[in-house]
Amino acid sequence: MAKRDLKKMLAPYKVTRPGKFRLKDVDPADTAGLKADKAEARQILQTGIAELDELQQKLYAQDRWSVLLIFQAMDAAGKDGTIRHVMSGVNPQGCQVHSFKGPSAEELDHDYLWRCLKALPERGRIGIFNRSYYEETLVARVHPEILRAQHMPPELLSKKVWQERFEDINSVERYLARNGTLILKFFLYVSADEQKRRFMERLDTPEKHWKFSASDIRERSYWDQYMKAYEDTIRNTSTEFAPWYVIPADNKWFTRLAVAAAIIDAMRDMKLEYPRVSKAQLEQLAEARSQLLAEKR
Amino acid sequence: MAKRDLKKMLAPYKVTRPGKFRLKDVDPADTAGLKADKAEARQILQTGIAELDELQQKLYAQDRWSVLLIFQAMDAAGKDGTIRHVMSGVNPQGCQVHSFKGPSAEELDHDYLWRCLKALPERGRIGIFNRSYYEETLVARVHPEILRAQHMPPELLSKKVWQERFEDINSVERYLARNGTLILKFFLYVSADEQKRRFMERLDTPEKHWKFSASDIRERSYWDQYMKAYEDTIRNTSTEFAPWYVIPADNKWFTRLAVAAAIIDAMRDMKLEYPRVSKAQLEQLAEARSQLLAEKR
Repeated sequence: MAKRDLKKMLAPYKVTRPGKFRLKDVDPADTAGLKADKAEARQILQTGIAELDELQQKLYAQDRWSVLLIFQAMDAAGKDGTIRHVMSGVNPQGCQVHSFKGPSAEELDHDYLWRCLKALPERGRIGIFNRSYYEETLVARVHPEILRAQHMPPELLSKKVWQERFEDINSVERYLARNGTLILKFFLYVSADEQKRRFMERLDTPEKHWKFSASDIRERSYWDQYMKAYEDTIRNTSTEFAPWYVIPADNKWFTRLAVAAAIIDAMRDMKLEYPRVSKAQLEQLAEARSQLLAEKR
Repeated sequence: MAKRDLKKMLAPYKVTRPGKFRLKDVDPADTAGLKADKAEARQILQTGIAELDELQQKLYAQDRWSVLLIFQAMDAAGKDGTIRHVMSGVNPQGCQVHSFKGPSAEELDHDYLWRCLKALPERGRIGIFNRSYYEETLVARVHPEILRAQHMPPELLSKKVWQERFEDINSVERYLARNGTLILKFFLYVSADEQKRRFMERLDTPEKHWKFSASDIRERSYWDQYMKAYEDTIRNTSTEFAPWYVIPADNKWFTRLAVAAAIIDAMRDMKLEYPRVSKAQLEQLAEARSQLLAEKR
């Protein structure tokens, strides 16, 4: 897709005026006016993945920048499937996925960013966080007992804890951006009705039973609190250097297309190029060629 | 491919009688009697990758075993391309690649396995080592100055150092196997002539210049010492729990097919299955279903 069209398509989903952001202005069933059938959507996605693979090859060759993709969503919104469909086809050597689950005892004995910072992608790589430190302003906010279990000195748990977390996260993301990490954050926004439909489907499909846990239903009862926490998080942590994209997630094919489009758009803007070879290197190459040609074996 | 045919095709490349192993018995240009054209080879590989993806999904769902694939080879033998072609298409969420380059100061201050053990795949994942601790019996053997730079107490550097390394590596691999890691080791065996041809091709292709370093040519002059080190390493570390495959690598399409075949064959033998759901879990699922149906939203 041409650069301009891509930016236009993405505009409604990229949060550029965080102060004005309201979750209710986004429709989880939105598909940007596209009515792709499955085969067509797969075809468009394939083209996108091929471009993504090319961009990633340059990223890897250049070895200067890294890309961090953060995925947050309610259960069954399609995080795993999106990562699978968008990133399969990209060279696994340049792509690393980290899923953050409940923290270990060692992790709880550190500040809440520690385990995520350890897992940041190296230069030249695309790193994907399936959940992230944003859980600390989402699930920890909906369930304050999680915050209390974090071994914090109690006198540091001020009333402004969420505001402090937003500020600290923004500062750290700014630091990472300043040092060469492109950060894109995705909230896959599924509706409560669609989540229910997907849960029922899982319950009706024996092969998917292992994926289902009782807690999935339990968290659903906190839906409104979660939406409030997402809205507040997005309003407070959408920055120029680490934007949030709120991606409608009631249609899986559209979620995948939109996420791929956002990554491609942002990576195109990086103007990645294969490294230039210096004059000294060219001389070395000429020397290598003579050596090879002079070989007697 | 049927189980029996696959095993038969792989038999010449899997080292099962290490005492009898001789590198000269393997022909780098061998293609197992297959004469696939490029399109056909890609088609067979695609079918293989689809099966690999399925096996990996079960591995991930079951979350009990892990798979460690080790790749060793001379430069330009096709490690990167093989990893790229065989593992692209497998869900990146269940697949992690580590490339081991020159060790850092911190890594040199540890035993030589340390940095590799830290990077082992979690249960449910396929981990790929692009180079590995086997460099310690290959490049360190060809270049003893590397061994001397390893901060070892000098009195521990006995004359039996290589034998000790083989023994220690075997013990650690046995331990890993006992704890649920399937280990497969691949030596991509390219001939000196084919390496030369590929180097010349890189020198003739400006877009590949950045990939070329003067040391590539330098290492080539140690070819015979390297082959001796590979042979000795393979003779001493081919075990039932962590076999070496010596894969002819003069034809890229065959290298990829053979590597995919070996992984599929070994993972089929694991008899992976989606986790069974217990009676208690089934009751929870039924309860979840009633809750969802009773919802008023």
